[in-house]
Amino acid sequence: MRIAELAARSGVSAASIKWYTREGLLPVGERTGYNQTSYGEEHLARLHLIRSLIEVGGLSVAAAREVLAAADDPDHPFGNTLGVAQASLPQAATPPSAESVQQVHDVAEQLGWHWYEGHPGVLAAADVLDRFRALGRDDLAAVLPAYARAVEVVAAADLDCITKDLDSGKATAAQTVVVGTVLGDALLAGLRRMAQTNESRRRFGSTPGSAA
Amino acid sequence: MRIAELAARSGVSAASIKWYTREGLLPVGERTGYNQTSYGEEHLARLHLIRSLIEVGGLSVAAAREVLAAADDPDHPFGNTLGVAQASLPQAATPPSAESVQQVHDVAEQLGWHWYEGHPGVLAAADVLDRFRALGRDDLAAVLPAYARAVEVVAAADLDCITKDLDSGKATAAQTVVVGTVLGDALLAGLRRMAQTNESRRRFGSTPGSAA
Repeated sequence: MRIAELAARSGVSAASIKWYTREGLLPVGERTGYNQTSYGEEHLARLHLIRSLIEVGGLSVAAAREVLAAADDPDHPFGNTLGVAQASLPQAATPPSAESVQQVHDVAEQLGWHWYEGHPGVLAAADVLDRFRALGRDDLAAVLPAYARAVEVVAAADLDCITKDLDSGKATAAQTVVVGTVLGDALLAGLRRMAQTNESRRRFGSTPGSAA
Repeated sequence: MRIAELAARSGVSAASIKWYTREGLLPVGERTGYNQTSYGEEHLARLHLIRSLIEVGGLSVAAAREVLAAADDPDHPFGNTLGVAQASLPQAATPPSAESVQQVHDVAEQLGWHWYEGHPGVLAAADVLDRFRALGRDDLAAVLPAYARAVEVVAAADLDCITKDLDSGKATAAQTVVVGTVLGDALLAGLRRMAQTNESRRRFGSTPGSAA
């Protein structure tokens, strides 16, 4: 198909398609004549993936390129793909305080988790604890143990999906890691809002935000 | 303090401080002379809050203004503050498909949740399911029941924090709602990465992303 059709079907403008190609996120199309390029269904699928990572996951173009490269490489060790997908978390400009890092380590230790120094998840969680502290709201860190128990359930479901792909020898395991990790945050955030509404109604008897 | 000191202490540039004032996110300082304005500790605290919402929560300036206005208003019903904080989720440009909305409703129904049509959490979750489908990865929706169980634990912890503030008559309940809801997503995302690493090591015996 021509670039105009690819743009219409993907919802991505022709200018952005050209930009993604230049930036190495999208493979170049097949040259079919002077100033004319042909694209296939694989380009459409790829654009859906790029849009998801950038629009829903909030990834920068550079972060999306890095994650996609890891998912594309057949020789890339599976474990490293998970590592790259995890590092796709937005990183704070300044490293978190030692105090907040210790707070996160303590929770992980209580649950018997394996982790390592400088894990992107530790840095992201500790950054939030620093923000709580800067706001004079250290008390909000009280949610940590419950959140940690909750993400154990989440991670088990995530790894179930990945394991299923690996067991069946599917080439999609790396894609599962990337899509599941990045879009999973947005899915969790949406369901969390629903559960808050439900819990608030259970406790206070009203449904916030609704007319009722 | 002068604007230069406020900028240095908050990490927000003088230009951004002026912009936040014009946009109504930050109260104006006290005029102390020709072309000179004095700011207090309350401005510093407010800038920490604005930065957290925008940098960590990924809120637009418009969304941050709306959320802050709800948290500031002493007459604003508490339940509505929760509603406003929930609506701060980035919304997709197009509404999700009826099929995906139904999928989310089904999970909520199985858990006996109360929700309402058009809840921002339903729309956000259904948008992610649409993305899975567009990628040919409907199978990833298999995580839904586990994710829903996990956010019940999260929401209970969230409401515990809010209830504690309400019980002690603290004026901070509205702030708890806003900060806890918006920054809580980032905290969850960080902890989820850690739990994935732990779960992956438990199943496969290696720690993705680390040198070990």
